[in-house]
Amino acid sequence: MTKDYRLDADKALCERASRAFPAGVYGHMSTSRLPENCPQFIQRTQGGRVWGYDGHEYIDYLCAYGPNILGYKHPRVEEAVSRQMKLGDCTTGPSSVMVELAERMVQNSAHADWSVFCKNGSDATSLCLMIARAQTGRNTILMAEGTYHGVDAWCSKSPAGITAESRANIISFKYNDTASLEQAVRNAGEDLAGVIVTPNLHELAVPQQLATRSFARRVRTLCDEKRAALILDDVRCAYRFSLGSSWDYLGVLPDLCAMGKTLANGYALSAVLGNEAFRDGAANSFYTGSYWFSSVAFAAGLATIKVIEEEDVIARIAKTATRLRAGLAEQSVAYGFEMNQSGPVSMPLFLFEDDPDCVVGRAFCNEAAKAGVYLHPIHNMFVCAAHDEDIDDTLVRTDLAFQALKASQLSEYESKTGHQLV
Amino acid sequence: MTKDYRLDADKALCERASRAFPAGVYGHMSTSRLPENCPQFIQRTQGGRVWGYDGHEYIDYLCAYGPNILGYKHPRVEEAVSRQMKLGDCTTGPSSVMVELAERMVQNSAHADWSVFCKNGSDATSLCLMIARAQTGRNTILMAEGTYHGVDAWCSKSPAGITAESRANIISFKYNDTASLEQAVRNAGEDLAGVIVTPNLHELAVPQQLATRSFARRVRTLCDEKRAALILDDVRCAYRFSLGSSWDYLGVLPDLCAMGKTLANGYALSAVLGNEAFRDGAANSFYTGSYWFSSVAFAAGLATIKVIEEEDVIARIAKTATRLRAGLAEQSVAYGFEMNQSGPVSMPLFLFEDDPDCVVGRAFCNEAAKAGVYLHPIHNMFVCAAHDEDIDDTLVRTDLAFQALKASQLSEYESKTGHQLV
Repeated sequence: MTKDYRLDADKALCERASRAFPAGVYGHMSTSRLPENCPQFIQRTQGGRVWGYDGHEYIDYLCAYGPNILGYKHPRVEEAVSRQMKLGDCTTGPSSVMVELAERMVQNSAHADWSVFCKNGSDATSLCLMIARAQTGRNTILMAEGTYHGVDAWCSKSPAGITAESRANIISFKYNDTASLEQAVRNAGEDLAGVIVTPNLHELAVPQQLATRSFARRVRTLCDEKRAALILDDVRCAYRFSLGSSWDYLGVLPDLCAMGKTLANGYALSAVLGNEAFRDGAANSFYTGSYWFSSVAFAAGLATIKVIEEEDVIARIAKTATRLRAGLAEQSVAYGFEMNQSGPVSMPLFLFEDDPDCVVGRAFCNEAAKAGVYLHPIHNMFVCAAHDEDIDDTLVRTDLAFQALKASQLSEYESKTGHQLV
Repeated sequence: MTKDYRLDADKALCERASRAFPAGVYGHMSTSRLPENCPQFIQRTQGGRVWGYDGHEYIDYLCAYGPNILGYKHPRVEEAVSRQMKLGDCTTGPSSVMVELAERMVQNSAHADWSVFCKNGSDATSLCLMIARAQTGRNTILMAEGTYHGVDAWCSKSPAGITAESRANIISFKYNDTASLEQAVRNAGEDLAGVIVTPNLHELAVPQQLATRSFARRVRTLCDEKRAALILDDVRCAYRFSLGSSWDYLGVLPDLCAMGKTLANGYALSAVLGNEAFRDGAANSFYTGSYWFSSVAFAAGLATIKVIEEEDVIARIAKTATRLRAGLAEQSVAYGFEMNQSGPVSMPLFLFEDDPDCVVGRAFCNEAAKAGVYLHPIHNMFVCAAHDEDIDDTLVRTDLAFQALKASQLSEYESKTGHQLV
């Protein structure tokens, strides 16, 4: 199998992309972060699988880096899209489906009384800051050290082209560290507008952390005391824990919740949901975008919610993902690797022990790609509803990957030491 | 005709929207800016026309506030979209159509060597600032007083929720005023990263101004002297003047060009195109979005360019729009109104003389809506390729609107003065 594995067509596209774009494909989809056997370009999708330009099929655990929650081209979503396309999409006013979706999402969210729709995850997180500031008349925002809230200047993890002033009014604290949070609140003094926090810590190449109940509750009580906004950045986690906001299961409700990714099963949609206490701030702020009122994404959003509700998708994905986690755990033990699996099961991150530079992880993902499974060595992955029927295939393929990884480690050991092991 | 004109269904939707959103439909599509006879919600579109929820048809000169350049549901765009949807849209890597579109747009733009795709117009303008700063290592940006470059904190026209620091490093000058521009450049001293400017002045409720050749050239020479970026904000004007950047006709090329709106005939797409001198800055900056790599918008973008090229759309729209302008000019004179028509013909703004609060303009748009023409009293409008066959109908309808406007003015005069005029 592996000797036929070539990515010639993909490499040719990368070559063209290196000229057509500043330095090839950019952002979170750049292959600069991926093992070399993962193709940069995807030609075709179906359910939980994708095909590259060299004809190889992959069971895809990136799921478009999140949006694909039901499976690519889910028939009920596509049907709603096609119905709406016959009416209209981007036009001079929204269609009624925008109101329907807002009503449905508000109804699904225990904390929310209103919503605002936008396009990027960054639109939603930045809008939450604007609303928190407009409502409170204060400027300071607290955020957890090193968390990703998007690419806007106030939070971008890259310093290039970012002014120092755009980071003004931001104070950081440590995730899940109540004392550090309390200190940050004291440092904000009378100027605290809000605390923005992700429902779990999901950063590159470090084990994910679920929020502790005591931490989440302390965020809530501190925001209550200061009448500041608890802003939950649910962009990556939306619809992974719940159709409402992702701290529901901890009994902690946000004032403002930024949602994205899965909302329309891949159609471009993000949202802010908020409560009455922040309605005026939201009403007084100005925000808009050329395509923010396009109806097809709203129709897809409504269909996505209906499928999730009627087919109990969140629980079903958790079951599927638990089979994946258990299977991988078993295989890693069998082949003698210590694998750290972290995060909510539906958003897995696999790291290998004693592998600080993710060299083993990369090698494993490279072997997995050759065997037909698209994994990421440092970014959390996603399981979708369509993967239900892919887990058995996946485990056959990852078994081959572990086997190849083991063999290459043995041969490396042999060539280094001169000892023949087999 | 007018006695049957009611918007009951639309008002019912607005009522629901006032609860589901912070204060009804927001942003540039909010009816708070529109005459009351223009419906907020649009149910159906075709070519250059839209239908509201009360069954009324309108010839639509908002064109989705810009994106609709070919006509709604243009068959060649829809065919390309449907072909791409069968392959894939938002997935784990881009498709080859992303590269093809980038190559085509770069080829069409005399100034450009590379491109970056994004979703909102604001994404593109803010990204230009980031790239200019990353490339030059300087921070100061010059922008024309009161021009709209989007909703991000550095340029938003609304103060709510915006910190003072986010406006740091921005110096303003007066549009088309070379002396004021030169003064701003002097004020920037050694810190000038770039000058951002729209190809024409297209602000609310003031006559549009085309850039003078001497002004545009002076922007270029000053940026050359300071090795700063000339950033053209072509979001609203893209593909209205040219398939390249909109100052081509003045012989002035930008370093960075922010494009949007029309790029994919309504599918969500914006872009930055730049030259070699700014490639490193762009390569070193980080920017991305959940749906920035979705293929359907790229396929729509390619089809849009092909139709514009093969059907000579830019020239054809200018011809159509010239007929509209001439017809309205004739009617306004016939009914005794002084109408100021400004801007490129394909992006018309109609203001009435001696009407500082646009009361007459609003009344005219109200009558036009009743007669079946969707116009805006203070925002520039857009003519699309499909309007070719709508101009005769439009002028029949605007004649009725002028007639009704005249009649209401006469009856107002009569009731105020007691003089019967007819």
